[in-house]
Amino acid sequence: MALDPAEHQPLQRQLYGALRTAILEGRLGAGGRLPSSRQLAGQLEISRTTVALVYDQLRAEGYLEGRERSGTFVAPALPEELLYARATAVPSRKTPLSSLGDLSARGTLLASLSVTSSPLYGGNGARAFRLGTPALDQFPFALWGRLLGRRWRRLTAAQLSYAEPNGYAPLRSAIAEYARQARAVSCDASQVIVVSGAQQAFDIVARVLLDPGDAACVENPGYRGVQAALVAAGATIVPLSVDADGLDVTSLRARTPAPRLACVTPAHQFPLGVTLSAPRRLALLEWARAHSAWIVEDDFDSEYRFRGRPLPSLQGMDEHDRVIYVGTFSKTLFPALRLGYLIVPARLVDTFARARAVIDRHPSALEQAVLADFIVEGHFARHVRRMRALYAERQDILLGLVAQRLGEWIEASRVDAGMHLVGWLRTRMDDQRVSKRALALGVVASALSALSVGSLARGALLLGFAGYTRVDMRVAADQLSVALHEEHARLFARRGPRR
Amino acid sequence: MALDPAEHQPLQRQLYGALRTAILEGRLGAGGRLPSSRQLAGQLEISRTTVALVYDQLRAEGYLEGRERSGTFVAPALPEELLYARATAVPSRKTPLSSLGDLSARGTLLASLSVTSSPLYGGNGARAFRLGTPALDQFPFALWGRLLGRRWRRLTAAQLSYAEPNGYAPLRSAIAEYARQARAVSCDASQVIVVSGAQQAFDIVARVLLDPGDAACVENPGYRGVQAALVAAGATIVPLSVDADGLDVTSLRARTPAPRLACVTPAHQFPLGVTLSAPRRLALLEWARAHSAWIVEDDFDSEYRFRGRPLPSLQGMDEHDRVIYVGTFSKTLFPALRLGYLIVPARLVDTFARARAVIDRHPSALEQAVLADFIVEGHFARHVRRMRALYAERQDILLGLVAQRLGEWIEASRVDAGMHLVGWLRTRMDDQRVSKRALALGVVASALSALSVGSLARGALLLGFAGYTRVDMRVAADQLSVALHEEHARLFARRGPRR
Repeated sequence: MALDPAEHQPLQRQLYGALRTAILEGRLGAGGRLPSSRQLAGQLEISRTTVALVYDQLRAEGYLEGRERSGTFVAPALPEELLYARATAVPSRKTPLSSLGDLSARGTLLASLSVTSSPLYGGNGARAFRLGTPALDQFPFALWGRLLGRRWRRLTAAQLSYAEPNGYAPLRSAIAEYARQARAVSCDASQVIVVSGAQQAFDIVARVLLDPGDAACVENPGYRGVQAALVAAGATIVPLSVDADGLDVTSLRARTPAPRLACVTPAHQFPLGVTLSAPRRLALLEWARAHSAWIVEDDFDSEYRFRGRPLPSLQGMDEHDRVIYVGTFSKTLFPALRLGYLIVPARLVDTFARARAVIDRHPSALEQAVLADFIVEGHFARHVRRMRALYAERQDILLGLVAQRLGEWIEASRVDAGMHLVGWLRTRMDDQRVSKRALALGVVASALSALSVGSLARGALLLGFAGYTRVDMRVAADQLSVALHEEHARLFARRGPRR
Repeated sequence: MALDPAEHQPLQRQLYGALRTAILEGRLGAGGRLPSSRQLAGQLEISRTTVALVYDQLRAEGYLEGRERSGTFVAPALPEELLYARATAVPSRKTPLSSLGDLSARGTLLASLSVTSSPLYGGNGARAFRLGTPALDQFPFALWGRLLGRRWRRLTAAQLSYAEPNGYAPLRSAIAEYARQARAVSCDASQVIVVSGAQQAFDIVARVLLDPGDAACVENPGYRGVQAALVAAGATIVPLSVDADGLDVTSLRARTPAPRLACVTPAHQFPLGVTLSAPRRLALLEWARAHSAWIVEDDFDSEYRFRGRPLPSLQGMDEHDRVIYVGTFSKTLFPALRLGYLIVPARLVDTFARARAVIDRHPSALEQAVLADFIVEGHFARHVRRMRALYAERQDILLGLVAQRLGEWIEASRVDAGMHLVGWLRTRMDDQRVSKRALALGVVASALSALSVGSLARGALLLGFAGYTRVDMRVAADQLSVALHEEHARLFARRGPRR
């Protein structure tokens, strides 16, 4: 074990981490005796108080047992929460799951899932370089406020009562028209189901279309939210690789029995940013037709295309009603609005409506009405146009910062569409370690490997640019550079002469 | 077949109904020949045109086939929708479920469920005597509008981004304080989870606490919404009877193996209005403790108590963290707000939060903030006080109308709490038939038997009074009286000498 006084972390923290890792990895076996604090302090050339404090902490957390005089031992049973290594993103768990013997297996499963690799809590929603955050400071607050006031004044008592599970009819019309024009979706208003964001769309789709044990394909790397919804519904996830042409449809077709459903981001793959090629689109649709399987088209940020002509939606190419289209206003307006939509084949409309009613009856009235006005009066199209131009600029700024300040560690290419860059690590650094280090410094930089099943040839950091000003991004880039330096230093220290 | 010219329904409508019923009940068998319009008109002593029009309508709807000259026959295959007698409340089904061979078993199940016995669609949300509708015309529109405008102006860009799955912290504090003071709920703000209405609360509870196949107790008669959520989660429903002291806890305790969960409405049983007695409360809590089972306390309209001291919540009496408390603002403010809350034991908070994030991330920001202000500034308590006085008056009005205009058919006693009366039918009329007939005349009068498993000794109509003015209720009572007369006449006709 080697501690490095030159490292940014205090020695106490380093020792704590080293011992905890050794216990978790079994290098310090259950029941094994540790050196006394005096012995260890001597070996490591650090103060005995530091060692004693670390022992105390590990005892309090259940990793160690025993007292200083009679000896310190590795606990025979480790704290159960360690069995859920993936769930550590939420820091506030009060009780380890295992003590919830009266929780259902499904509840335990649900609690182990996460929709994002960023921390769920903590109010760091709009912090650079968090993914999926639009330019919230550029939102037309005054205009939306006027529409809000007008709508509230005009709302009738009947509109305050229970309403249709599918959503407010004028909003459904407005969405249908937008989807037809902007995305060549083939639909009428009756096929639109307003939901509280894409996450609810995935949840409803998974519950309506899948039975427990059904196989569902997802892109690898891919969006955690859709995977969480599928797993929550009891589905078995089949991750399929993504290359420069998007999802590898050949390997999908090779799978027998055929999965019931495949989730794709054809316009702009999340997170790699590639577009699903036309031949693959046709092959995917043909696969769904042949197996009566479903395709979930997650069209999450197709509005932001900077170069090239956008391909129409997959749904619009489908002639056999196999595509469920999912759209969201979180990327075009703001996430806290919690409005998105499903466009489903006509014969599924009532099934989805009834399922939605059981899940939470119907969406809230007021903001649906305001959004309908916002779209119908042309403000939505105007706002998206403005943001498209702004995000193109912001991409340039971030590309510049990456080249100037982060170029030693990462490389990123310009993207044709979307709201983030993929910053590939030049060295063999662990992207999740860098990401964690960056977060401790106040920078959100999601690790590509956290969105992947299996190991990657190369790690990457996903850097959102849409929501952040030049200053935001400059500050964050500097901090990220510190995190990268630190992680590099750690690697060097481990390989260095002191080991 | 007997038609009654003195009846309120036109003869054409009566004939249509009689023929349709005869076909559905098999008295006119598939392929059977009907008399010609001339013959039938002669038999019934009505005009031939009336018969011809009815035949045309039944042909158009698929019940009859053939032409006037060659004879009129009962169709060999009946319209598919007839296979779903319970599902007729939703008129817009386009494809019968049976043809959806590629739908999952769970999807089919979800689509068969219903949260209400009233029609889901049709904008008749605020029509007398619909249940659960507060006095929407008495809502303080201007005040809420001011709070809305103020909050929107003060919202920061960060508040437009993704937020905590459990809800807006100041709202959670306000709810915790209210629940402690008004309902003696034992909690702090961290245990409050804001949801989009009680239905979402039930859905999350069922998914987190139950596995498919687990048994869950419900009250019989009871609330459909909670049953739908349990069934959707794969639970097996165990209906237990309700008497004057509320849920029959003795029969719950007798069940082995013990159900995992019991859903109750202790303050004011839905729909019968009784209160769960103190000994039963203790027995129920002891049952849950002994079996590590859960109690879901649905406290849906406890705010409206007109007489007697309210019993504190069951949750407040529980010393073993077995109660999940569910509250809603649909009854105190307005249903289209879609805000309610769960109060869960501290050790379940993170599990629920994570489940909620997978289901739809978090509630919408703006209305949560407005509601927090509304509560904290005292408007909520004031509004509830005003409504309590108003609903007491409205109950008096409805009791008067029942005595004056419906007394021949139904009897109703004053209730100590809540928003509706139970109008017991004096004769052996089928309450669901009366309810259907009333709906055709524009009156919502839910049938008690539709909320019951098994047959009832006596039918009843549930008459909401909170949401309706004197004039609304007078008009609706007159129409309901017509429906009751019609149904009585039909019964008489079937039994009478003309048969």
